Amino acid sequence: MASIAVCPGSFDPVTYGHLDIIKRGAHIFEQVYVCVLNNSSKKPLFSVEERCELLREVTKDIPNITVETSQGLLIDYAKRKNAKAILRGLRAVSDFEYEMQGTSVNRVLDESIETFFMMTNNQYSFLSSSIVKEVARYNGSVSEFVPPEVELALQQKFRQG
Amino acid sequence: MASIAVCPGSFDPVTYGHLDIIKRGAHIFEQVYVCVLNNSSKKPLFSVEERCELLREVTKDIPNITVETSQGLLIDYAKRKNAKAILRGLRAVSDFEYEMQGTSVNRVLDESIETFFMMTNNQYSFLSSSIVKEVARYNGSVSEFVPPEVELALQQKFRQG
Amino acid sequence: MASIAVCPGSFDPVTYGHLDIIKRGAHIFEQVYVCVLNNSSKKPLFSVEERCELLREVTKDIPNITVETSQGLLIDYAKRKNAKAILRGLRAVSDFEYEMQGTSVNRVLDESIETFFMMTNNQYSFLSSSIVKEVARYNGSVSEFVPPEVELALQQKFRQG
Amino acid sequence: MASIAVCPGSFDPVTYGHLDIIKRGAHIFEQVYVCVLNNSSKKPLFSVEERCELLREVTKDIPNITVETSQGLLIDYAKRKNAKAILRGLRAVSDFEYEMQGTSVNRVLDESIETFFMMTNNQYSFLSSSIVKEVARYNGSVSEFVPPEVELALQQKFRQG
Amino acid sequence: MASIAVCPGSFDPVTYGHLDIIKRGAHIFEQVYVCVLNNSSKKPLFSVEERCELLREVTKDIPNITVETSQGLLIDYAKRKNAKAILRGLRAVSDFEYEMQGTSVNRVLDESIETFFMMTNNQYSFLSSSIVKEVARYNGSVSEFVPPEVELALQQKFRQG
Amino acid sequence: MASIAVCPGSFDPVTYGHLDIIKRGAHIFEQVYVCVLNNSSKKPLFSVEERCELLREVTKDIPNITVETSQGLLIDYAKRKNAKAILRGLRAVSDFEYEMQGTSVNRVLDESIETFFMMTNNQYSFLSSSIVKEVARYNGSVSEFVPPEVELALQQKFRQG
Repeated sequence: MASIAVCPGSFDPVTYGHLDIIKRGAHIFEQVYVCVLNNSSKKPLFSVEERCELLREVTKDIPNITVETSQGLLIDYAKRKNAKAILRGLRAVSDFEYEMQGTSVNRVLDESIETFFMMTNNQYSFLSSSIVKEVARYNGSVSEFVPPEVELALQQKFRQG
Repeated sequence: MASIAVCPGSFDPVTYGHLDIIKRGAHIFEQVYVCVLNNSSKKPLFSVEERCELLREVTKDIPNITVETSQGLLIDYAKRKNAKAILRGLRAVSDFEYEMQGTSVNRVLDESIETFFMMTNNQYSFLSSSIVKEVARYNGSVSEFVPPEVELALQQKFRQG
Repeated sequence: MASIAVCPGSFDPVTYGHLDIIKRGAHIFEQVYVCVLNNSSKKPLFSVEERCELLREVTKDIPNITVETSQGLLIDYAKRKNAKAILRGLRAVSDFEYEMQGTSVNRVLDESIETFFMMTNNQYSFLSSSIVKEVARYNGSVSEFVPPEVELALQQKFRQG
Repeated sequence: MASIAVCPGSFDPVTYGHLDIIKRGAHIFEQVYVCVLNNSSKKPLFSVEERCELLREVTKDIPNITVETSQGLLIDYAKRKNAKAILRGLRAVSDFEYEMQGTSVNRVLDESIETFFMMTNNQYSFLSSSIVKEVARYNGSVSEFVPPEVELALQQKFRQG
Repeated sequence: MASIAVCPGSFDPVTYGHLDIIKRGAHIFEQVYVCVLNNSSKKPLFSVEERCELLREVTKDIPNITVETSQGLLIDYAKRKNAKAILRGLRAVSDFEYEMQGTSVNRVLDESIETFFMMTNNQYSFLSSSIVKEVARYNGSVSEFVPPEVELALQQKFRQG
Repeated sequence: MASIAVCPGSFDPVTYGHLDIIKRGAHIFEQVYVCVLNNSSKKPLFSVEERCELLREVTKDIPNITVETSQGLLIDYAKRKNAKAILRGLRAVSDFEYEMQGTSVNRVLDESIETFFMMTNNQYSFLSSSIVKEVARYNGSVSEFVPPEVELALQQKFRQG
């Protein structure tokens, strides 16, 4: 198996659900590029740099992971990295249709790059960055959803609010 | 069964689908708090006060119902009210995944408060506040979807529009 | 809230997913009748008596639970028990459509009996009796899915097989 | 069969998926009105006029097609055209629930106008205007998704962007 | 619009949900062939002849309807009848995926025959022959689900049972 | 990436949809074991040997593929083969919930073996062995769905039928 994979997402912010997929990918691929997508439509809470910083912080113990960001098409980024695989987490309650659409279009753009879906751990099958932000916005505890560094960053962000 | 339940929603505006659930909840629970959620993300058509006013108007014949609003986390509001149950309507075409996400997170925050889903009456299984507003915006009749008081309020709102 | 609820199912056999719902129901209702449905179409692994026996065994520490079986319509059984509520577990991956169909028909037969859906714990959101039987048939460990008494009964059943 | 049908949509811009449905509709109905809905909520990339222009361009070889736009309720437009049928494409991954909601409300407003769903060709079952715009925004090739005239218009639009 | 349509199904037995689609089809098409599919896999309650008899009985007041049965492929039957359209009911809770599969294969076999999906009336969106049989088997009233002739036939069938 | 993967299925019979996944897996993994599951519940059309024979026939030009069968648990077979990955095709209309259930249970049984879902090509997103058998049973052409060898085997099988 090609040893290079790309693990794309908004990561606004990174959650335990994301980390579950990143770690399992790193366990199987020799090199995993975690790519923060600068998705035009959504208004992010954290800037791209803040999101990359948090990701580097919570993955610093995983040697074969590199965090980067990319503005263009995901498929072009994967080609630049010589990656043969794109890794996507699939939650029981993930936007299955949105994933299928993206994958189907990527396949038209470049059939040689395969998208692998990995099922998120049951515990996190309902978790998303948006619901974490909703809970944090009203001072609910998010310690079960995100690492301590991210919880702290959320508290600071909403205090500046 | 604990006699106190919370029935949360945006209610922008209240529809016959909402009323179907509220009435059935009031038939089973001794006290039902209808809680207008001040949901940050959505830009409402009616202010929180207007929504509460309409709800009070259309439930005035149901003695064991109290209409309130809350800014914070739903689970915190339920605790303040000593409620053991949160009541949610489940439409054949409801955002099943969004409901599961919210319920799953609420359970992490406080396992003692149970969320009960009640199936909306077939007639209303396609009804939502957003589609009612879309029809009213273009002077379509909404009399089959909302009580007269709400229809009137919609007409006034869109005439000011 | 009427203190009597019915918690119906095939329970062939009872799993930790079923127990999660039964316990939470018993925490809220004064009396819960766990009703083993003698569903004509499916060819059960365990007889109705064996299923009732296992259920009594694993719920013996919960005082307000009674295990019974019924051949006729669920709604008729609920009426005989003076129950106002039917409790159904809703898994992220439950047969949502089958549940909606049954509930919708029950509502036509008797509107006064409410069906409450309770979300199964994330851990069990993928669990079903059929997949437990599949794993046990090929000597896989089911200790994470069913109580010890049930695991033993499965082993004996498949050894006789 | 009434020979008049309405084929509504945002068409922002028209894709091969839309054209698949329009052509098949025109093959069966004597007259098809392709109606560009001026949907209030979404912020379009192309103006209504630009969208109508593109549609006329790519359907100019189909004699029994007329492209128009309408601000009001779809059902009112269909009545004005004496149409007995509304044609909607149904993608494997279409917003099935949104379609059902719209159709169910249209039926309450006027039962005599039938909505027919036609399944989009497998090739286009993942295609949507929004994903075409996302690919074009980052200079990806959309030649497999839209006719040449539309691809050119997208390039010009994003160059001005 | 070709004035001939085929409306296929198992109709074991015909329900108000089926009749809703058949009547609306007959309102739009000059001739509708209601075709009882002799589906190999399912073990029917009523024989093909009994199902045809019941269908003829409950549609006798609709002049442009003919009830027939066919053993081979649906698409071959439609060709023999010169039909350009196959009509299928789509329930909120219909086996959407199974419908898409059948339609997609029919399209490969003969692209000129179009499958139109019509949404079943909200009232019947949960209704299916199988649930009607389940209720009738245990002497539940099915008067809200099927015409009187069918209710009588069900009672006789289960008494012979 | 461990270069060994298992690609399990009933393959009753193998279709172009299956082959699409097997070929793409073989393009990425050094060794792919195509494992014909001897699934107890379903009554197969072809025996296990016949299914293996057909698979070997249609994959003979792919060097790094080995066709085998296994009676026990998939996860045990994967361990015996030192495979780190199980490959599953995901169709737009695949039994997503059944896949999630199996994967979630496999993860409890052995977390070190990862299940990768790969999206089937749009063309085959509606294809399944059961619908191929249904078409072949009534002499419909299946040449667009299965290789010639399999079409021939189906004709022979149904002629003996």
